[in-house]
Amino acid sequence: MAEEKKIPYKIYLNEEEIPKQWYNVRADMKNKPAPLADPATGNPLPAEALNVVFCEELVKQELDNDTAYIDIPEEIQDFYKMYRPSPVVRAYCLEKALGTPAKIYYKFEGNNTSGSHKLNSAIVQAYYAKKQGLKGVTTETGAGQWGTALSMACAYFNLDCKVYMVKVSYEQKPFRREVMRTYGASVVPSPSMDTEVGRKINAEHPGTTGSLGCAISEAVEVAVTNPGYRYVLGSVLNQVLLHQSVIGLEAKAALDKYGVKPDIVIGCAGGGSNLGGLISPFVGEMLRGENDYRIIAVEPASCPSLTRGKFAYDFCDTGMICPIAKMYTLGSNFIPSANHAGGLRYHGMSPVVSQLYHDGLIEATSVEQTAVFEAATKFARTEGILPAPESSHAIKVAIDEAMKCKETGEEKTILFGLTGTGYFDLVAYEKFNNGVMTDYIPTDEELQASFDKLPKF
Amino acid sequence: MAEEKKIPYKIYLNEEEIPKQWYNVRADMKNKPAPLADPATGNPLPAEALNVVFCEELVKQELDNDTAYIDIPEEIQDFYKMYRPSPVVRAYCLEKALGTPAKIYYKFEGNNTSGSHKLNSAIVQAYYAKKQGLKGVTTETGAGQWGTALSMACAYFNLDCKVYMVKVSYEQKPFRREVMRTYGASVVPSPSMDTEVGRKINAEHPGTTGSLGCAISEAVEVAVTNPGYRYVLGSVLNQVLLHQSVIGLEAKAALDKYGVKPDIVIGCAGGGSNLGGLISPFVGEMLRGENDYRIIAVEPASCPSLTRGKFAYDFCDTGMICPIAKMYTLGSNFIPSANHAGGLRYHGMSPVVSQLYHDGLIEATSVEQTAVFEAATKFARTEGILPAPESSHAIKVAIDEAMKCKETGEEKTILFGLTGTGYFDLVAYEKFNNGVMTDYIPTDEELQASFDKLPKF
Repeated sequence: MAEEKKIPYKIYLNEEEIPKQWYNVRADMKNKPAPLADPATGNPLPAEALNVVFCEELVKQELDNDTAYIDIPEEIQDFYKMYRPSPVVRAYCLEKALGTPAKIYYKFEGNNTSGSHKLNSAIVQAYYAKKQGLKGVTTETGAGQWGTALSMACAYFNLDCKVYMVKVSYEQKPFRREVMRTYGASVVPSPSMDTEVGRKINAEHPGTTGSLGCAISEAVEVAVTNPGYRYVLGSVLNQVLLHQSVIGLEAKAALDKYGVKPDIVIGCAGGGSNLGGLISPFVGEMLRGENDYRIIAVEPASCPSLTRGKFAYDFCDTGMICPIAKMYTLGSNFIPSANHAGGLRYHGMSPVVSQLYHDGLIEATSVEQTAVFEAATKFARTEGILPAPESSHAIKVAIDEAMKCKETGEEKTILFGLTGTGYFDLVAYEKFNNGVMTDYIPTDEELQASFDKLPKF
Repeated sequence: MAEEKKIPYKIYLNEEEIPKQWYNVRADMKNKPAPLADPATGNPLPAEALNVVFCEELVKQELDNDTAYIDIPEEIQDFYKMYRPSPVVRAYCLEKALGTPAKIYYKFEGNNTSGSHKLNSAIVQAYYAKKQGLKGVTTETGAGQWGTALSMACAYFNLDCKVYMVKVSYEQKPFRREVMRTYGASVVPSPSMDTEVGRKINAEHPGTTGSLGCAISEAVEVAVTNPGYRYVLGSVLNQVLLHQSVIGLEAKAALDKYGVKPDIVIGCAGGGSNLGGLISPFVGEMLRGENDYRIIAVEPASCPSLTRGKFAYDFCDTGMICPIAKMYTLGSNFIPSANHAGGLRYHGMSPVVSQLYHDGLIEATSVEQTAVFEAATKFARTEGILPAPESSHAIKVAIDEAMKCKETGEEKTILFGLTGTGYFDLVAYEKFNNGVMTDYIPTDEELQASFDKLPKF
């Protein structure tokens, strides 16, 4: 295999090879994702209505289902150069440890201080906010990767950044909070006494430790009631997947450089930002009939929106003040168990990913937490990188597929997305190391109770 | 400045350009560093004596003052490819924020899970231990970067790894501990009840939270009393600086590629592992009369071994069971204040760095903690990377030098070593963010009291 020998451990593109345009997979989709709609009426929301919540240029991108390639502004291209291109790594050491004939590659997005791919979209959203002349942006954060990424982006553009952090995370993850503060963000434990919705929840549930849904509602309220502020979001939305296409475009360009075509592309799926970005150019080729890939979305068994959810319009937040979206959902009333992969603990799924799954272009599977940490530990010990729990869902399935190849002798090429690092997830690793990690799978009754409360449009 | 425009944000060497030999600066030094000596007699220790504590091949490297280039074993070259080459980054964004005509470059060693350059030597020491047929290695760790790096290296070579972690760090840095455990190391809070020296200290000082000197003594005791074990160390020793030369060699090769010659090379200095590695090829050119550079070692004002220490033989550990070394030292009885840059909190300095400083080839300066965190925050907000407190000492002086250029209009080229990331140092960042960080400078009397106890050889 002389040809294979030439593939380096890490494939870096040159700076000039970083994509100059994002790829909008919606342009190639026959069945477009359903539009965001009014939570009161179920009617699609026009740009003017969305402009109250989001930045105008981002609303344009959100609604644009036709333009296949959208220019990346030069300022963003420059910022990307600070931490991109990210490498595609050939997992030689993992392959050796597994004894598999499969060829495993991963696109590693964790080598920036936000610790994940979230910065790819945060910087864009901050840029358009600045360009619109805004004073600042608001957002929520749970696990903290998105909040960190947005803080970094706002520091760069000198924008005010207000992060509503789920109170339990605020208290349990003081280090995440301090990273955001170091970047100049103000971090508020949610529910707070700053907002109407926060005061209401605090009054109704004294001592509550908050939830992501509540934090979203608070962040949106602050954005729409303060002139010069808008709300920004790190996943789910079409615009976010558009920006994250940089992951897939880079990955594909790096593999193309060495004539490598993946048979299987694997990504973890919470709101869909990483998965949607990673797979977009591959799915694009499938949609255009140019090529075929097996694409697998991996979600936690504790929060299985694709594999066990309904494809329906649902609320994005618990306060029900955000637009509603048509997506695979467990119902906005579903409270995911304390799975440590905070970034995958969301009841819904990006409308784009949902539509692609509905149309049979991608598969989905769910995995349990303990098995995920076993895979994470194996990966850490062989490839040297301590993976985020979210990313480790993809690792788990990549290893499973590689082991199937070992049985069959097939030399499949596997690409997976390694979205980030686990430096702020060591409470979870500690539980695993001490053998006290538990798994949880919601019952059918539990899910049905949540489905019963889906909005009726 | 058309030529300058071409320099990318990040200069990566190709995998084939990773050094295949380490550079041993001792070969070019007219005044060799003094040899390790017997703490009982002050006489130089022969290889046979050192072989009881250290791996044989490493002892050879320790004592070799003549061979300028030493081959990097192929297995190590392969491991290096997993996380190297590390980039040389042109700090365009920092330059812009400072408004300086200076050109600032940094060699970033933090993009691996150990979070620092420590892995460069850990993997080599683990390799030689494995090759010697050992069962395992022992070491101590304070801040935890070295322990993490060694755990990763031992996981790779399937070696047992026993880390004595200063008890106060063990308790205050549970996350560092968990990273090591994830890599399969056993982490023991020091002083423990496993060793004679540990039991003695626990008996004499009930409830003590330990010290680095005590942890070293414990690790050495376990190594010399257990067949198949040796002690390994992450700094100070000649062998460590040899391995770390990969930093400087890569940095120089990357700059040479673009025809860039630094006027000033800056590194933080604790035990000297990073500084010695970064500067070695530059100092080599100075020693051979080929080129001239200004080289600055930066140490904390709270632990100023170069700027205020004595150049003398001293103990490396408090248990006084290790060989003694001739170095700039504050005396092994000096207890550094709780400066957050744990990696710089060592009473001594590498004999190689000490000799170079003594011979006037490098300068040294000391900086205070609060100013260091101001520089760290500025760097984080402009360059996107959250730096380790240790590394931020170099950032502080690089910024100072760049600001001098702003005053004089000089377009100096500055290279500094960014040794690692600060993800496990957020207690310190929190103190800084809350405005409660304090500075400490030892008094002359305090230092004199420690100097009075230096061994008399």
